[in-house]
Amino acid sequence: MDIAILGGTGDIGEGLALRLAYHTNHEVLIGSRDAEKAEAKAAEYEAELDSRGMELTIDGGANADVATLADVVIVAVPPYYVTDTIEAVADDLDAGDILVTPATGMDRDDDGFHYAPPPAGSVTEHAASAVPDGVELVGAFHNLAAGRLANLDADLGVDTFVVGDDGDAKGIVTDIAEGIDGLRALDAGGLGNAAEVESLTPLLINVAANNDGLHDLGLELK
Amino acid sequence: MDIAILGGTGDIGEGLALRLAYHTNHEVLIGSRDAEKAEAKAAEYEAELDSRGMELTIDGGANADVATLADVVIVAVPPYYVTDTIEAVADDLDAGDILVTPATGMDRDDDGFHYAPPPAGSVTEHAASAVPDGVELVGAFHNLAAGRLANLDADLGVDTFVVGDDGDAKGIVTDIAEGIDGLRALDAGGLGNAAEVESLTPLLINVAANNDGLHDLGLELK
Repeated sequence: MDIAILGGTGDIGEGLALRLAYHTNHEVLIGSRDAEKAEAKAAEYEAELDSRGMELTIDGGANADVATLADVVIVAVPPYYVTDTIEAVADDLDAGDILVTPATGMDRDDDGFHYAPPPAGSVTEHAASAVPDGVELVGAFHNLAAGRLANLDADLGVDTFVVGDDGDAKGIVTDIAEGIDGLRALDAGGLGNAAEVESLTPLLINVAANNDGLHDLGLELK
Repeated sequence: MDIAILGGTGDIGEGLALRLAYHTNHEVLIGSRDAEKAEAKAAEYEAELDSRGMELTIDGGANADVATLADVVIVAVPPYYVTDTIEAVADDLDAGDILVTPATGMDRDDDGFHYAPPPAGSVTEHAASAVPDGVELVGAFHNLAAGRLANLDADLGVDTFVVGDDGDAKGIVTDIAEGIDGLRALDAGGLGNAAEVESLTPLLINVAANNDGLHDLGLELK
């Protein structure tokens, strides 16, 4: 399957790109608003994989140019850019394509980080407002520590939660996620359940900040 | 230490009472609005422990009567009764006593359960409004599956999150929690971080509802 990662030059985009390229047979495409930056990062990821004995070609390009080639498009951009990014590539998506959003909204005060969803109830539901007809939206990969994901020497052994209103699209994203070694994808229900998934991210950051020896946290349900 | 569990006849109260009595040396007191019900449940817990070879006396009584005897008072009542319950025992607490709240607020729609905090931002912060001067409030035990807790044959191997604005009180509650075999207590910061802890409970319920073979879920950060 062809998977484009828009914002694939950022922290979480890098982690997902490296893990998907390293652990799965999917074709990974790196997108950015700046095509040259995407190409340069794709070359970096190729070099990282080459150092581990994998000779792969990872293409980079402008968001719209990689989105048009992909079956699954992961929108790995900050929460405030999710809808703009989807709208910018909407004409390049085909019916049956799947958009995946890992974004969550947070703010910070003296106590720590707090979940700060948009009026739609969650960033995932806010993203849904920009999704073109015929394309399905799935929320996934919200609670993964970017640094741990990007370090291919780090074991994961953690869960990610998948939300969406279309069972087939959720199934495809679940299979993609579980292609990554040590990642279990759990069905957290419909898009309406995204807030409970997204709000885990500030908790993980707060716990890492308050407990010695814990960092880059994930979680396993058991 | 003397630990009173108000609402100790309910599901989460039963689990905490049995685990604390079974795994720790603390004195556990069962409270209820109905003293006779508390006495009957305390006798049930004694019988359960006796069947495991532990001869303990667990006293039960009216909430105020057990609160006055205790150093730590766990308010194991539904979220809408937390402040009323604290106010009803406020005169029976001494300076230096610690109140512990495990409650979280949820509602439900077609997608599943959702976090529904009161205007204070979280049930824990709402509880704080009723706490008398000189008494510290700590949030803990929010995300534990009651049935699993009450089944002393079930392994835990899960985390609970502790929030509070007084470090000493948090330390005492952390020590109490970690006295339970298989329970790790993680510092999630101040009371202002309670919402991110409380909102885990609906997620755990939603994931259990949507994935075969998962039930009575807890979680481990890793």
